[in-house]
Amino acid sequence: MTDIICTHPVLATAASSVVAPVVPARGRLRPLGIDEVRIADGFWGDRQRVNGANTLAHIESKLESEGWLRNFDLAAADRLPEGRRGREFSDSEVYKYLEALAWEIGRTDDASLEARFRAIVARVAAAQEADGYLNTRFGRPGQAPRWSDLEWGHELYCLGHLFQAAVARARTRPGADDGLLELAMRAADLVCREFGTAGRDAICGHAEVEVGLAELGRLTGEQRFVDQAGLFVERHGRHTLADIEFGRSYYQDDVPVRDAETLRGHAVRANYLSSAAVDVAVENGDDALLDALRRQWRRTVERRTYVTGGQGSHHQDEAFGDDWELPSDRAYSETCAGIGSIMFSWRLLLADGDPRYADLIERTLFNVVATSPAPDGRAFYYANTLHQRVPAQPADPDATSPRAHSSLRAPWFDVSCCPPNVARTFASLAAYLATADDEGVQVHQYAAASVRTTLPDGTVAAFDVSTAYPAEGRVRVTIREDGEWTLGLRIPEWADGATVRFGDEQAAEAIPGTVSLHRAFQAGDVIELDLPLAPRVIAPDPRIDAVRGCLVVERGPEVLALESVDFGADVAEAVIDSAPEPTETDGQVRVRIANRETGVASDVVLIPYHEWAQRGPSTMRVWIPTS
Amino acid sequence: MTDIICTHPVLATAASSVVAPVVPARGRLRPLGIDEVRIADGFWGDRQRVNGANTLAHIESKLESEGWLRNFDLAAADRLPEGRRGREFSDSEVYKYLEALAWEIGRTDDASLEARFRAIVARVAAAQEADGYLNTRFGRPGQAPRWSDLEWGHELYCLGHLFQAAVARARTRPGADDGLLELAMRAADLVCREFGTAGRDAICGHAEVEVGLAELGRLTGEQRFVDQAGLFVERHGRHTLADIEFGRSYYQDDVPVRDAETLRGHAVRANYLSSAAVDVAVENGDDALLDALRRQWRRTVERRTYVTGGQGSHHQDEAFGDDWELPSDRAYSETCAGIGSIMFSWRLLLADGDPRYADLIERTLFNVVATSPAPDGRAFYYANTLHQRVPAQPADPDATSPRAHSSLRAPWFDVSCCPPNVARTFASLAAYLATADDEGVQVHQYAAASVRTTLPDGTVAAFDVSTAYPAEGRVRVTIREDGEWTLGLRIPEWADGATVRFGDEQAAEAIPGTVSLHRAFQAGDVIELDLPLAPRVIAPDPRIDAVRGCLVVERGPEVLALESVDFGADVAEAVIDSAPEPTETDGQVRVRIANRETGVASDVVLIPYHEWAQRGPSTMRVWIPTS
Repeated sequence: MTDIICTHPVLATAASSVVAPVVPARGRLRPLGIDEVRIADGFWGDRQRVNGANTLAHIESKLESEGWLRNFDLAAADRLPEGRRGREFSDSEVYKYLEALAWEIGRTDDASLEARFRAIVARVAAAQEADGYLNTRFGRPGQAPRWSDLEWGHELYCLGHLFQAAVARARTRPGADDGLLELAMRAADLVCREFGTAGRDAICGHAEVEVGLAELGRLTGEQRFVDQAGLFVERHGRHTLADIEFGRSYYQDDVPVRDAETLRGHAVRANYLSSAAVDVAVENGDDALLDALRRQWRRTVERRTYVTGGQGSHHQDEAFGDDWELPSDRAYSETCAGIGSIMFSWRLLLADGDPRYADLIERTLFNVVATSPAPDGRAFYYANTLHQRVPAQPADPDATSPRAHSSLRAPWFDVSCCPPNVARTFASLAAYLATADDEGVQVHQYAAASVRTTLPDGTVAAFDVSTAYPAEGRVRVTIREDGEWTLGLRIPEWADGATVRFGDEQAAEAIPGTVSLHRAFQAGDVIELDLPLAPRVIAPDPRIDAVRGCLVVERGPEVLALESVDFGADVAEAVIDSAPEPTETDGQVRVRIANRETGVASDVVLIPYHEWAQRGPSTMRVWIPTS
Repeated sequence: MTDIICTHPVLATAASSVVAPVVPARGRLRPLGIDEVRIADGFWGDRQRVNGANTLAHIESKLESEGWLRNFDLAAADRLPEGRRGREFSDSEVYKYLEALAWEIGRTDDASLEARFRAIVARVAAAQEADGYLNTRFGRPGQAPRWSDLEWGHELYCLGHLFQAAVARARTRPGADDGLLELAMRAADLVCREFGTAGRDAICGHAEVEVGLAELGRLTGEQRFVDQAGLFVERHGRHTLADIEFGRSYYQDDVPVRDAETLRGHAVRANYLSSAAVDVAVENGDDALLDALRRQWRRTVERRTYVTGGQGSHHQDEAFGDDWELPSDRAYSETCAGIGSIMFSWRLLLADGDPRYADLIERTLFNVVATSPAPDGRAFYYANTLHQRVPAQPADPDATSPRAHSSLRAPWFDVSCCPPNVARTFASLAAYLATADDEGVQVHQYAAASVRTTLPDGTVAAFDVSTAYPAEGRVRVTIREDGEWTLGLRIPEWADGATVRFGDEQAAEAIPGTVSLHRAFQAGDVIELDLPLAPRVIAPDPRIDAVRGCLVVERGPEVLALESVDFGADVAEAVIDSAPEPTETDGQVRVRIANRETGVASDVVLIPYHEWAQRGPSTMRVWIPTS
């Protein structure tokens, strides 16, 4: 297998017709859209199915019962502000839901979803003002004036989500006559007029409009939208927002993006802003900015990211802590911050092709995003603690939880950003699995899937992936059409001892990184990747005070957890050997754990972290003390 | 020295003329007032002096410049709500300042303070409404109605501080014609009418009115005030307040006081409520309630209290965490919570006479209360972290800090409860040093001081305490008047190897607890207590995850800290021997600490924690990792 090489393919060209959330004009890798990658059954396929079958209807029912959709009707009827319900950013949940619907319609062609989509777009459109302004909380008689509370008002933030929804719709249903793209562009034009170089020198307290504008610019070819995104990005750190209790770092207005050393402040804001900054840097060929973002990503991953991939150590301000400040029991690790981190990493992956970005995406997908929803897709974690000290009480299935920080999967929250964020991510997940360049296709995430794309020279790369990953480590790629091209497979950083085998050839060891296989493939050819899933024991960096003297066990991409249900006692009493030897039988991992109180040691089951709290109230810990 | 006995003296009678903040009708010990105990120079004397010379004027200048005093003028002139400044509880800072002034006037007889006191009382009085209501934030046209926001409005909370101020004034200047007591009683009568058994079944979201009412009742002999305090105490835990983001535990409305197992929720609220509950239990002879509070105190100290005595692990809700949740780097340990803990412990000490309550008071005084103010008394810590990861930026001496949680001593905060709380505590500190019972006097805290009191049988107990404690461990008690009585001396829990010597007799070992010395004392008799101050190394409970594998060094009552200024590097790199042997030279403690980065080990100075951050920006840690 001398043709397995570990260098990266050269610059890929972008295709404007790609059906994906992020379609840069340039970059090392071109995303494959949801029409080119289709997820089959399996870990992620199941979640996509539950998302489509349960979560979307659940969200719409909540948007109605909470009055957040009705706010648009009241606006259209000139009856605001009386009767308006929800927080200042509630419009954005409607837009995120529209985005999720758009991807799901693109994925499934479901006619009833299409009708629901159009009905909501019509209600939103009716609320738009003549000059393009659209927000149910500001600007009408009796409401605060437009743009009067940039720190907390979230007006531009909401529009950013509107733009992403419009992009999703335009890419999945080009030329649709629902009017969403047009209303988004009217709003975007207003933003450019109000906040352009001749307008207010200001930013929104929650980054998001930047990433929406950049993608709208990419979609439409309107450079002014990208430029406006760039203006907003560059204005961060210029102290145009007030100094607040949490400091200007909360909304990344403390230090200019290109001068910062690390992500900081509110973890969702930080990741959304960083994502937009990559977009702007890529579109403008701004290598200095891109390099600053690469450095910030590295430092953030090294020092401010949980073993789960989660980000954000503070409940108070939903923010990153200082370097090495990663408490398990007060981990915030907001679901939306995990999604934001995937957005940031994905953009860097497209720009650079470096598989370590995909490594973090995998870690975050399995251990943050997959942890949030309950198996039925109708309850969610907002924060994802790594250590539950007190058994959580079951959530009232009919109530809206005021406690975003609770360790409950709750059906809805007063601040309910996470459920629709999970929904849009699952609905578009196929667009994050694989990429292409001039030479071939790269598979970054392993899921049962079908892939078919046409390379720039007309070569068709088509194959199926079959795997029970992450339960099993065997990934089988079956070529479906003849063609000479290069298949790239990511070897995860943890996969020490992975092997790749082409047909009957001898298996070759593949070191972590990317393994590339150039062949004149024939339909029916099989490539087998074997990822070693033996449980691994990880010790923390000694500078992380919160988990000193503790170990964590991982299996494949999954972080494992000790739950009191399996331990038979409060996990506060658990002590693991200092050199434990976890064993695995039929995918179930056990490790020797002693009870500090009783002194009795036994082999205890560790479950995937994302499965915790599904068997009643329990205590749980990811990091287990050695003594 | 066979007459040194370790049993407690019998029940003491209360004296209604005691000049102290807390004067129960019954209890094992009777407090000595600030006219009976006078602090001389030394650790606490210096702080009292700075408090009187600098802090009080600093506070008044802030109350003026922030407009919190002017709010009363606006109220009197019927000009509110326009122009009102400050948070909903800003009135209470004025009252706490009045209380501090009252104690300081009582202590020093300062005529200029007396004039300032009267001027402010006049402004407050002018704002009181005809029916006794007093609050600058509620009840006028254009303001929210009275009692319309019991969760967050703090109306009753403010009145509680008014009552405490009036009590302080009445005890230090009985019969003064300033009118403060009368206006307080009018307000208290209103509270009884509005919230009595026939009134609203409601409580305030921040406990405080209870402790104020109870003491006002003790002062005036009006049982109805004590009864109203009891009503409020018992109403907690009945869910009369809304379920909020932080849960009803935030304001102790989750579980009735007598059913709770531990302090929980907002740490200041919890301690104020517990203090009032002791008052009510003592006045009513309610042993069941008192016993519940003793149990809660024990569990809270065992599982939810920092080594500094600090309480509160959450920044978000300023609250206790779960058992064993005691992160150093996110320690909130609010100064006011420390003061509240002292209030709670002091009441239990008076009730029970158990020296372990005084042990916690000492720990909290030296390591929380003394840590808050800068040496000049013009800047304060609101939160008292045990681990500073990033050098704090110096505070702007002219600015009001929006960041209560910052690791800066700041001159003032938007929420500025702590500075006046420290001021009233220092001004009345002499009242927390010693007590009496029928047999004699007990010294609980060691400070250079003069004590003179008359026991129930007419015996005068008079003595001076001279000591350089905590710099030195020798405490010398010199009897000033002849008399036969019992001197009780607290032997701190850490003082293994303490000795007591009467005159030329041989020194006797005194084990932690109370050592009692019954004698026919003669003027000039000397008792010498020697407390061993050799540095001690403390390991944490293994259930405290945040400091696993770490050690702390203490010396006497002081917790020591490693500051980067002394280490010569970021304390993130510090590693202490697993069995360190700290040494002391001239009161300065050094211990072997290696730099993880360089591998170089050296003997590094540890400073008293309360002295940290006085030499420029630094990093600091109290718990030092062993590897």
